[in-house]
Amino acid sequence: MLIIAERINASRKYIAQAISSENIDFIRNEAKAQDQAGADYIDVNAGVFVGEETERLKWLIEVVQEVTELPLCIDSPDLKVIREALPLVKKTPMINSITLEPTRLEGILPLVAEYKTKVIGLCQSEDTMAETIEDKIKLAGQLVEKVTAAGVPIDDLYIDSLLYPLSANTKSALATLEAIEQIMKEFPGVHTTCGLTNVSYGLPDRKLVNRTFLVSAITRGLDSAILDPTDKQIYKALKAALTVIGKDDYCLEYISAFREGRFE
Amino acid sequence: MLIIAERINASRKYIAQAISSENIDFIRNEAKAQDQAGADYIDVNAGVFVGEETERLKWLIEVVQEVTELPLCIDSPDLKVIREALPLVKKTPMINSITLEPTRLEGILPLVAEYKTKVIGLCQSEDTMAETIEDKIKLAGQLVEKVTAAGVPIDDLYIDSLLYPLSANTKSALATLEAIEQIMKEFPGVHTTCGLTNVSYGLPDRKLVNRTFLVSAITRGLDSAILDPTDKQIYKALKAALTVIGKDDYCLEYISAFREGRFE
Repeated sequence: MLIIAERINASRKYIAQAISSENIDFIRNEAKAQDQAGADYIDVNAGVFVGEETERLKWLIEVVQEVTELPLCIDSPDLKVIREALPLVKKTPMINSITLEPTRLEGILPLVAEYKTKVIGLCQSEDTMAETIEDKIKLAGQLVEKVTAAGVPIDDLYIDSLLYPLSANTKSALATLEAIEQIMKEFPGVHTTCGLTNVSYGLPDRKLVNRTFLVSAITRGLDSAILDPTDKQIYKALKAALTVIGKDDYCLEYISAFREGRFE
Repeated sequence: MLIIAERINASRKYIAQAISSENIDFIRNEAKAQDQAGADYIDVNAGVFVGEETERLKWLIEVVQEVTELPLCIDSPDLKVIREALPLVKKTPMINSITLEPTRLEGILPLVAEYKTKVIGLCQSEDTMAETIEDKIKLAGQLVEKVTAAGVPIDDLYIDSLLYPLSANTKSALATLEAIEQIMKEFPGVHTTCGLTNVSYGLPDRKLVNRTFLVSAITRGLDSAILDPTDKQIYKALKAALTVIGKDDYCLEYISAFREGRFE
């Protein structure tokens, strides 16, 4: 289970403030906390700083890499920003994200191939944000085709089949769960990932819904997620889910995480 | 989602003491608490009182029925005890349980048919306690066959495909999850149920594992469970799971449960 740690994202108010004021200690602490909590990749996003995103992201990358050995997940809506950020990373990163929109796809896929990065692929094209199971599977298939045709191993593709608020459509999460299961079966070797927060929009006790979706998705085969590993409730739900579905030999990771105090 | 409330079971020390001392208030409180917490059936079990189980169970049934309108789940290892208890219940009960062992099956099925009760069927025969997916499905099929041949509607059968400790076999819960999914698909109209506590035997933070299994099983189609509805953590995990898989129109049950303070 690959955990992409989501906290260092400028759409979060405190992170935007820390970037604005170049508060190195704040960002360092965010990076260290996520590293210690069990992250596999640290997402870095400065997307709200339109016009100066490249400089801001470069600063983030430097600060984060000073305190963690973990690889980064370069997260930007702007192709040029990604292109300029890639030469700065010390470890092979992940790129967040490609879609099937031609400009984005054709701009980023060559970088994925050149830098041998992992990449998140959203089930989204010029005219479709996949909502039905059928659309999610269809666009996932197109992503697999485009990515592998560009010489990128399928093992480097993390498909995000998109997750919408339950408050708007009661069946929306079920569509994502079924898509995850089918994608993992139909395209052997590919991975699935997902951000969790959309699902609970408009509902009370959002974190409960988020972690319940995570457990459900892991049960269906999800093998990566974009989340906050410092949230102990979500972290321990994740560890318990891997144990329940038999992906934790002798329950050793679960028992170790408990003994190391990672559940409290 | 049918909740069979498990607390009034003499294998629990405080319940056995309350039965021994005929502590009416204690049992009444247990029944009321489970009723108010969202139970659909109240399980009653006096199985540890060998030799005087009938009298003890009759007493339990009377005391519980004084304070709740809910139907009971008559839970006994002894066929004769079940036979004597049935005439005492006010509402159509559930019987816990039949197996494929001939004495038990042939003794109880006529009672199920006569009293038109619901019944829990364990995937267990004379020579097999189903551990593999194949055995679970095979015995489930035999239960369906025997039960319907006795004139009992398939809608009254709740199959428990058995759940074993993860600490003994890492893949044991996955087998149960896959069996639940297949049973619900292969035998339309049947129900599945499950006790949760076995799965976490020998592990730390057992309740976390139990509720994570519950969420995973609901995701696979489980539509009943034997659990303690007064455990807020498990109750809210259950409500969130039903919402996530689209079995809660407009998320109304989830939102109501939250507003009524059932999550705290």
